[in-house]
Amino acid sequence: MINAAIIAIGDELLIGETINTNSAWLGQELTSLGINVNSSVTISDNQEQIIGTISKLSEINDIIITTGGLGPTKDDITKKAIASHFGVDLIEDQKTKLHLLNYFKRRGRVITDIHLEQALIPSCAVALDNSVGTAPGIFIKHSNKLYFNLPGVPREMKSIFQENINFIINDYKSLITEDFFIYKTIYTTGIVESEIAKRISYLDDENDTIKFAYLPSYSGVRIRLGILNSELKIIENILADVESKVRQHLYSYVIEEEKPLNEAFQEYLISNRWNIAVAESCTGGALGKLLTELSGSSKIFEGGFIVYSNKAKQELLNVQKSTLENFGAVSEQTAMELANNCRLKLKTDFGLSITGIAGPNGGTKEKPVGTVWIGISDSKETKAIKFVFLKNRDANRELSKFTALSLLYRKLKYNIEL
Amino acid sequence: MINAAIIAIGDELLIGETINTNSAWLGQELTSLGINVNSSVTISDNQEQIIGTISKLSEINDIIITTGGLGPTKDDITKKAIASHFGVDLIEDQKTKLHLLNYFKRRGRVITDIHLEQALIPSCAVALDNSVGTAPGIFIKHSNKLYFNLPGVPREMKSIFQENINFIINDYKSLITEDFFIYKTIYTTGIVESEIAKRISYLDDENDTIKFAYLPSYSGVRIRLGILNSELKIIENILADVESKVRQHLYSYVIEEEKPLNEAFQEYLISNRWNIAVAESCTGGALGKLLTELSGSSKIFEGGFIVYSNKAKQELLNVQKSTLENFGAVSEQTAMELANNCRLKLKTDFGLSITGIAGPNGGTKEKPVGTVWIGISDSKETKAIKFVFLKNRDANRELSKFTALSLLYRKLKYNIEL
Repeated sequence: MINAAIIAIGDELLIGETINTNSAWLGQELTSLGINVNSSVTISDNQEQIIGTISKLSEINDIIITTGGLGPTKDDITKKAIASHFGVDLIEDQKTKLHLLNYFKRRGRVITDIHLEQALIPSCAVALDNSVGTAPGIFIKHSNKLYFNLPGVPREMKSIFQENINFIINDYKSLITEDFFIYKTIYTTGIVESEIAKRISYLDDENDTIKFAYLPSYSGVRIRLGILNSELKIIENILADVESKVRQHLYSYVIEEEKPLNEAFQEYLISNRWNIAVAESCTGGALGKLLTELSGSSKIFEGGFIVYSNKAKQELLNVQKSTLENFGAVSEQTAMELANNCRLKLKTDFGLSITGIAGPNGGTKEKPVGTVWIGISDSKETKAIKFVFLKNRDANRELSKFTALSLLYRKLKYNIEL
Repeated sequence: MINAAIIAIGDELLIGETINTNSAWLGQELTSLGINVNSSVTISDNQEQIIGTISKLSEINDIIITTGGLGPTKDDITKKAIASHFGVDLIEDQKTKLHLLNYFKRRGRVITDIHLEQALIPSCAVALDNSVGTAPGIFIKHSNKLYFNLPGVPREMKSIFQENINFIINDYKSLITEDFFIYKTIYTTGIVESEIAKRISYLDDENDTIKFAYLPSYSGVRIRLGILNSELKIIENILADVESKVRQHLYSYVIEEEKPLNEAFQEYLISNRWNIAVAESCTGGALGKLLTELSGSSKIFEGGFIVYSNKAKQELLNVQKSTLENFGAVSEQTAMELANNCRLKLKTDFGLSITGIAGPNGGTKEKPVGTVWIGISDSKETKAIKFVFLKNRDANRELSKFTALSLLYRKLKYNIEL
């Protein structure tokens, strides 16, 4: 098994000003390359701590990747720490210098000494091209271990990884014959973790070779079955058997496309040439944003209405004044009018509406914070379903958008009763 | 200085299936309590690794907080590891058991043995109430160090921290007299990191007692000035002086409210009793979602139109057919019609529109991927400004929504010329 450690460098990560998304992304990439991510550490912009952490982690890992601290400002000290760790000097990399000069010329900007410092790399290192920014990645091979230093800006980090590092790691792998971890993930939607456990935990008990993990998120629970590749031949049949049992037990909750809900939804609608319009109140555009996250979404998404105020509900989507007066903006009737009218206005196959009390204010005894009506409309019928989610505004908005998508997906796919 | 370490437990974090937001949140809370977050580590659901990491980190830290692995499923093994680390057994906590029984009764659900296992805690521990879920937090005080084990579900983790742990830590602090780190953050918008460095890096060079950090994000760059509290009296004047110079150099780019852009924007519009409508094409609702993220947003946000298709642009917002034919959907003219017409339809003070090519497809030589027009309209004038952002869809959508907000904020606040 090839082991890797990820080191994220930056006080902003430790004190929580920035959420570390890089380590998760790298973990995903390394896992998909069959590398075992053994530890992931976040440390301060502190030369001593950087050197100490690299030393310690390189004892038990074959690949060390750092992110952060390669920028043009003074708090970026990763390169100096790396050079010091390997006992070498920083030297100017001519290819990177040329890249920097061209990068600034193309943009009509004047290059300064600060920028040119980005061409300095440890003398034992190779510079990795950064096609979307100025700081190059740094690659050092030492004692048959691989060291990579990447910028902290996610798109630069990703671009350098995708254009360089995965090839280097694949080469490295081909020289080593060991076990690799492999995971199989089953995506579900519309069912909670404890209900899943009730249905399938006996399979977990029965199968020692397979490691079960349950990963809840707002869009649904993923079930991950983990195995060690060297045993693959022995347990191939067991795995297939377990997987098929899990799918049977969770039938109408399984995302058949084996993808996150929004990807599966888009794929399914495209394959049926269906399209959709939305009407959003408390989510304020979050459902539309979700539906347009993927390339190709114009094939299924026509547009929608953000009807945040009552005035907007009446003027943009003709919700009846009497409906608002008699039942309120958060009601079955309003959700149905919104879903039906957005569908009719945009002449789509489906209309999906969300109206609720996201909180923290606005709740009443009858309609507490977390009360959300989701409306679904097609040419045959319009229905609305009530949910009472949580006390937290963000959570209620996230749950609302994913539940709307989940309901329509499961209605279309498995013909569930609303 | 009181040092803390955060340990996030879970294979899903290491392999990147889930992004670790807990550690950032905890880092923020601890920092605001004056605690120095010394390291943040992510490790596997592996008993040996959990015990080893806790042992190692407790050598150099006063507070150890773990998240994850307290759930009802079999892969959740944190409690066993903790008990083993302290050489004690797991015992049933009566208060937690009662809480569990009530929790299930209130929801009309049947409690199972799996759920009741959540009442087991190490015999040397105190259970911390979980008011939003079933797994209690665990608190152990040992050799004058504090150990906390929290569930991995963010809202449960946060609730236990806010209702229990910050009080425990404050008590602990009051018994110890040491230095605390303090940070001062200056928020900017509309200016890049290297331009900021050009203007103020001399201040960084001049002031050794103050640590400068530049934190770029899509909404702008935050500048953080860091100091050690014990020296506060000596450098109070220096800090005030440096901060005021930074503000001068970056005048019309500074967010005066000292808050993230969207919070400052909402506060500023509320104080002027202004409201806004949006029209979004490539962002698909992201701007509306951003504008409704905070409680109280109904005071400034009326609603909007998600005009993803050309049909939607024409039918919902009366964009002229000739405009689309002669100039295209991504054009100054279309952006202006969208901004103006959404403002008129919803009778708001301002209309903000976004139309662009988010990518990865749809670019041409004249309008490459990343081309975005942002329209701003009020009763006096309607203008549109062109940007050419990046090649990445997510980045283009994020940059579009924040740039739209940044432009309107700076136009209103500093009267910048569009």
